[in-house]
Amino acid sequence: MYVIGERINGMFTDIGNAIAAKDKKPVQAMAEKQLAAGASALDINVGTRVPKADRAAVMQWLVETVREVTNKPLCVDTPALETMRVGVAAAAKGGLPVVINSTIGQQDKLEAFMALAHEFDASIIGLSIDEKGVAATCEEKLEIAMRTIAAAMEAGVDVEKVYLDPIVLPVNVNQTAPGIVLETIRQIKMLSDPAPHVVVGLSNLGQGALEKHLINRTFLVMAIGAGMDASIHDPLDEELTNAMVTAELLLNKSIYSDSYLKAYRQG
Amino acid sequence: MYVIGERINGMFTDIGNAIAAKDKKPVQAMAEKQLAAGASALDINVGTRVPKADRAAVMQWLVETVREVTNKPLCVDTPALETMRVGVAAAAKGGLPVVINSTIGQQDKLEAFMALAHEFDASIIGLSIDEKGVAATCEEKLEIAMRTIAAAMEAGVDVEKVYLDPIVLPVNVNQTAPGIVLETIRQIKMLSDPAPHVVVGLSNLGQGALEKHLINRTFLVMAIGAGMDASIHDPLDEELTNAMVTAELLLNKSIYSDSYLKAYRQG
Repeated sequence: MYVIGERINGMFTDIGNAIAAKDKKPVQAMAEKQLAAGASALDINVGTRVPKADRAAVMQWLVETVREVTNKPLCVDTPALETMRVGVAAAAKGGLPVVINSTIGQQDKLEAFMALAHEFDASIIGLSIDEKGVAATCEEKLEIAMRTIAAAMEAGVDVEKVYLDPIVLPVNVNQTAPGIVLETIRQIKMLSDPAPHVVVGLSNLGQGALEKHLINRTFLVMAIGAGMDASIHDPLDEELTNAMVTAELLLNKSIYSDSYLKAYRQG
Repeated sequence: MYVIGERINGMFTDIGNAIAAKDKKPVQAMAEKQLAAGASALDINVGTRVPKADRAAVMQWLVETVREVTNKPLCVDTPALETMRVGVAAAAKGGLPVVINSTIGQQDKLEAFMALAHEFDASIIGLSIDEKGVAATCEEKLEIAMRTIAAAMEAGVDVEKVYLDPIVLPVNVNQTAPGIVLETIRQIKMLSDPAPHVVVGLSNLGQGALEKHLINRTFLVMAIGAGMDASIHDPLDEELTNAMVTAELLLNKSIYSDSYLKAYRQG
């Protein structure tokens, strides 16, 4: 599993405060903690407390702050093209790996973000969203998925660098969506060989629910069973990590030993 | 989910001792505890400490002991036809529901056990095993599944009463089997409409593994995601039950409320 750590996000109080105070320490400590817990990449999101006009500059500071402690992929998280360009440029400096998080499936956005991905040799997350909003059905999600793959090929972005996100919604708001997303994952995995990557922003699912941790990790396991190979979540959630590592073990993606959980944590 | 409680089995020390002493109390208490925890049916297995010659008589005693406290389906668990007949007759007395656990896919066994199922209007579990042993591949498991369905139809047993068990093996012995079983579950669910039921004897999977509870519940969640609708396991394992209930919630098989775990336990 390609785990993208979600914790460097201004919506979390600790990181929001660090951003406001331009205090590098909590940000860098959070980067290191997530990587030590097994994250393959780190999401970087300035949050909504930062005024729109300042977001590009704050994104640059946040990315540069994290780059001081790691060469791992940074996942620049913003819907705004200009903020994205600034963040990606900072993250990719020196040829380091970067992920664009994200583009939607609206044609003009797709073209602009895919061009950026090509320019910086970046990976890119494509959401099941277009000008009509979040795609509700499996068919609509697949239609956007295929449009996203086509735009990648058109822009010269390797399909291996595309991560399709079928979008999970809070289960306490929409109970039919999780099943539709699982079916969409299975279908995406049959679209091509090699299949496109699939990612979800997991924490959305349990948002507002009393049992959010249980809900998130149960869905993660079902989604891995359906073929999902990347997830944006909190790698510091130990039970979530245990469930993920066990699901992969059961799919024969790691080797069994009685201490397989410890083996994962030791890398 | 159709949960078949596994705990009335002579291989567990408490039940093995109760059987040896012909002490009804621990057996009946275990029956009631499992039903209170949500079991839909109770497996009844005399265990291997009972000499072969005594097993039919002990099965009758064990079934009658449990029948004193419940009218719920009893799942008579033995490979021996005569012990099965005695157990099923005792469990079905008064027209009460019974499950035959199990038949293998060898033709003469299939015919004998299906005839018994027809005679007592019983449900029946058909294992992915035949004269060649445990079927290893998805194709072989499906072949036995189709043979089992055909034998049921031939004997006049409603397909709705057949539960196909693709057989999970200990993951520390065979790491490719769980993935094959998941794929088999998906395929069985496409065999017919309505699809045959699928059941597994879950605890086999984690047998001998240090993290057996985590392994069992992670697989249960993936199997539910693949379409499994019955499981033989320990309903007293609270984390297992929580994971199962959450998986079903995410597949929209129960209604969300913040207290959905409590709602399940209150029936």
